[in-house]
Amino acid sequence: MPADDTLDRVRAFRWSGDALELLDQRALPGRVRWLRCEDAPAVARGIRDMVVRGAPAIGIAAAFAVVLAARRHGNDAGSIAADLALLREARPTAVNLGWALDRMRGVLATGAGAQRLLAEAEAIAAEDLAANRRMAKLGADALQPGVRVLTICNTGSLATAGLGTALGVIREAHRRGWLEAVYACETRPANQGARLTLWELSRDGIPASLIVDSAAAALMASGRVDWVITGADRITANGDVINKIGTYALALAAHVHGVRTMVVAPSSSLDPDTATGSQVVIEERPPGEIQAGLERAWNPVFDCTPVALVDCIVTERGCLVEPARTGLAGLSRGAAN
Amino acid sequence: MPADDTLDRVRAFRWSGDALELLDQRALPGRVRWLRCEDAPAVARGIRDMVVRGAPAIGIAAAFAVVLAARRHGNDAGSIAADLALLREARPTAVNLGWALDRMRGVLATGAGAQRLLAEAEAIAAEDLAANRRMAKLGADALQPGVRVLTICNTGSLATAGLGTALGVIREAHRRGWLEAVYACETRPANQGARLTLWELSRDGIPASLIVDSAAAALMASGRVDWVITGADRITANGDVINKIGTYALALAAHVHGVRTMVVAPSSSLDPDTATGSQVVIEERPPGEIQAGLERAWNPVFDCTPVALVDCIVTERGCLVEPARTGLAGLSRGAAN
Repeated sequence: MPADDTLDRVRAFRWSGDALELLDQRALPGRVRWLRCEDAPAVARGIRDMVVRGAPAIGIAAAFAVVLAARRHGNDAGSIAADLALLREARPTAVNLGWALDRMRGVLATGAGAQRLLAEAEAIAAEDLAANRRMAKLGADALQPGVRVLTICNTGSLATAGLGTALGVIREAHRRGWLEAVYACETRPANQGARLTLWELSRDGIPASLIVDSAAAALMASGRVDWVITGADRITANGDVINKIGTYALALAAHVHGVRTMVVAPSSSLDPDTATGSQVVIEERPPGEIQAGLERAWNPVFDCTPVALVDCIVTERGCLVEPARTGLAGLSRGAAN
Repeated sequence: MPADDTLDRVRAFRWSGDALELLDQRALPGRVRWLRCEDAPAVARGIRDMVVRGAPAIGIAAAFAVVLAARRHGNDAGSIAADLALLREARPTAVNLGWALDRMRGVLATGAGAQRLLAEAEAIAAEDLAANRRMAKLGADALQPGVRVLTICNTGSLATAGLGTALGVIREAHRRGWLEAVYACETRPANQGARLTLWELSRDGIPASLIVDSAAAALMASGRVDWVITGADRITANGDVINKIGTYALALAAHVHGVRTMVVAPSSSLDPDTATGSQVVIEERPPGEIQAGLERAWNPVFDCTPVALVDCIVTERGCLVEPARTGLAGLSRGAAN
């Protein structure tokens, strides 16, 4: 999975032939350190501990982990199933993880060997990159020259197979010469905006300004933002968006200030089996991840943005304007084929 | 200024007889370190570098600094004026600083000596503590048993002469047995909520839960908050509230979720000479205060909450309900006298 674009120089993982190597995103931007995972439990740990994060990226990492499981366990279906269960439980909120594992399980069910499984994992990654390229174009087409964007978390190459979702749209706007300003929310508690998004964008020569998360509403009130552009960890059947904690507050403030909100996510993040966002289990992580030694906290790492606050949803199947009015039928597989 | 209440054990400064000692709030909660200031420039540095912060506390610290200036410079009016200017420019946004300096200048103008100036500084501190006691009662009277509160920044004894503004109301609700839950926003970039508010409340035995700032809207959406209670660095003539960055986002989210917003500040934070919040200079601090080495950021440390989002303003002169409807006349000195 080499970077093939000067506006996309970073990768979150690489397949070494006998192991999956994960770029340790906890150490960025201070240190570029690769973590070698030789079996599925190691990948599951990497997902749980946020060595790799981002809904598409954890799906792809899990797919490669199934290859490792098949190689290690051969015909021992029980051990492979145990590895699959371990992977599935590594993070609860993003739907891409289960989606990728279901797809790999389908190949496993045909009795295919590790070579065929590897081809499937590579296809999942390649399709994700292709989807991101398509979304970058579709999303940018909705913008205007001189656009000023606010984004949250990291939705770039580090969160996907490459290019990114929301960050792919931002890169494409920059490539077209349209991007007047990009603001990145720090994105507490893990600081993915401050640590990862600024690092990715600086490597591509795109200057971004950091804000603390709580300054977003004031930034919009000052008239400095045209679009909030975010990724999604899951989009439910009605169009509600589950994404990084803080996304809801951004969409709320955007709505009040006449700023538009665009959600960019591959169709693997769609969850047609869940009616609304209120039914999604929101992962809560330990207080210590906000601050060392902290005892009492409420630390959900995602929130739900009601579809009514979303101006458009972009997947590789199309750009859906006013999804609350139109519904998500336009993004269903049937509609795209 | 000894603590005289088991629910108020902390002090931000102490007068040693020949110097003002500031509790270094940058080092809390890890280290309790006192910084000895023997002249006014040292106090000004302490204010600028946020050794001491909180609108009332910086006003009081500046008042004691005038005593130091008078002692050092005697009848040298020019040097005293230079110290006053230095103090006035130490932080631009809170109005208490200028208010306290004007009051001290009034005493200076009578030709009074250091002893009389010291009495005035001590009176300013004592009046602030008395105002906080009065506001704690008035604010708590507006609450109900079982109340669940969200607060931002530190508005406690560390930010005032003692007890605090918003935190005084929260302490009083706790004393009455009414406080079911208190959530503290981390309050980036300087983490006053995470570092100072949790520390103050834990010393008083009041358990508080921390949230990252961007989780506030989701917390309200989940139905866990009845009141947002904040302090203010300045309240303009029309009732707009200038306070810690993030306050506006809280008030916005509260408004949408049917959560009420209470602003608690002494009358020394009122600024009748400024018509609306849009005319206030909002202090922007260096990018490096968000993250070491950061080059590009937008780092305002206050924002403006329009009066329309405020359900009540509490000063020592009274509790004003729906200030957007009633105006601030009910809090004018004439109305109270």
